Amino acid sequence: MIIMKFTEITSLQNPKIKQLLKLRDRSCRDDTGLFLIEGYRELLRAVTGGQEIISLFFSPTHFLGSNEEWLLYRALDGGAELFSCSKDVFEKASYRDRPDGLMAVAKQKSLTLKELENAMGASPLFVVAEGIEKPGNLGTILRSADGVGADGVIVCDKCTDLFNPNVVRASVGTLFTQRVCEATSLETIAWLKSKGIAIVAATPSATLEYTSMDMTKPVAIAVGTEQLGLSELWLREADIAVSIPMCGVADSLNVATATTILLYEALRQRKCP
Amino acid sequence: MIIMKFTEITSLQNPKIKQLLKLRDRSCRDDTGLFLIEGYRELLRAVTGGQEIISLFFSPTHFLGSNEEWLLYRALDGGAELFSCSKDVFEKASYRDRPDGLMAVAKQKSLTLKELENAMGASPLFVVAEGIEKPGNLGTILRSADGVGADGVIVCDKCTDLFNPNVVRASVGTLFTQRVCEATSLETIAWLKSKGIAIVAATPSATLEYTSMDMTKPVAIAVGTEQLGLSELWLREADIAVSIPMCGVADSLNVATATTILLYEALRQRKCP
Repeated sequence: MIIMKFTEITSLQNPKIKQLLKLRDRSCRDDTGLFLIEGYRELLRAVTGGQEIISLFFSPTHFLGSNEEWLLYRALDGGAELFSCSKDVFEKASYRDRPDGLMAVAKQKSLTLKELENAMGASPLFVVAEGIEKPGNLGTILRSADGVGADGVIVCDKCTDLFNPNVVRASVGTLFTQRVCEATSLETIAWLKSKGIAIVAATPSATLEYTSMDMTKPVAIAVGTEQLGLSELWLREADIAVSIPMCGVADSLNVATATTILLYEALRQRKCP
Repeated sequence: MIIMKFTEITSLQNPKIKQLLKLRDRSCRDDTGLFLIEGYRELLRAVTGGQEIISLFFSPTHFLGSNEEWLLYRALDGGAELFSCSKDVFEKASYRDRPDGLMAVAKQKSLTLKELENAMGASPLFVVAEGIEKPGNLGTILRSADGVGADGVIVCDKCTDLFNPNVVRASVGTLFTQRVCEATSLETIAWLKSKGIAIVAATPSATLEYTSMDMTKPVAIAVGTEQLGLSELWLREADIAVSIPMCGVADSLNVATATTILLYEALRQRKCP
């Protein structure tokens, strides 16, 4: 047992816990530039992905594994303050049905287009997510972008904020390891065009099927809102528009599902050209 | 305006509304063999898919389109009882944040393996979903199976019930148009083997990538629970095991996402052999 310095919390009235609960609201996240990370897997990826942790709350009775102590040590080492919570306090502060004893307050961080550029490969593959409303969808898009090893995700004209607890959760922490950028649609379009990256608009109205296009060249797959799809701007500025065949009665797939299909087709083509 | 016979409901204490609310619980669904369908899109697919509607509750002030009346007429014609609810009652009875004025009680119905067999094509494509826990995942699997025009979905050793309101919702009503069967794993394996349908186990531990296997022949793509994946039984009985490449930090995808990738690869191969 490594000796670690921490403060004990036994009351929900503790101001640190009150702040933790407030961070569930977007207004508090926007005002403070902070956000919540809950869960071992998510925190592990945050810590290893270089995410700055301000404070880490833990409840040993909820720990499921044996590496939690190592994680606490890593966070402490990175400058986080540690708080040991009583079982009761942790359960009430937790965002989950089955808490695993770890929750943190961290500093929001996303990249600029310039930073994205510095890290991109020879034939980059990007996702552009325009105006996504549901945190779960944005999180799933991040998870799939991680799955195919994409060069980054650009969130345009955001509706849900990237740091919503459900984005963190649905992304299973890939939010912290993926290159994520927030920008306006106009900036993003200008940047993609200047870099010679083809904009592929995913839209049910396209006649070209996604499997018929060459995705081995530099591409940005653009997807739009759950209700209306991509805006006129993106449809107009796209180099090519593709659709996913729908052979049944439904006329479209969920936006995160559609993005995943396109990303994995790009990966397939890139692996077996 | 067609004259329709309906009963007015202005109180939440009305026994019909009480039953409606009880059907949110699985125990009530299991006991009665009934379930809830909410939403215009879902009900449209239910009615056109031949789903038997027992009672249809509506609130014209919530209608978003102009075809709701036609839907009411169709349901009435099929033997449903109609109930016009006051705005307030409908909002309280609704399962949704933004109700669209239509909700029904319907009779549960799923196929047997024998019935599935009668309708299958020359080179069938099935999904086997073993022990899925989250209704949203089961609904998404149904939606993707509809998307590729699969021959059916077999739900084995169910955890969530097919008739959970969130399955209906996530499936956007494809639950009613898709061929869905509930069976035990043992029955299903015996049936697939007797029909010469290859069992493809989707598991992160497989060394063969899904794009390297021939999915043009008769196949059943088998996927397992969110936490543990497929059971030993399915892994042992499978003809082939495939994995999806994971190029980032995460070691797996969500089960519904993984199923969708495999289904669309099967469709791609079948369209461009």
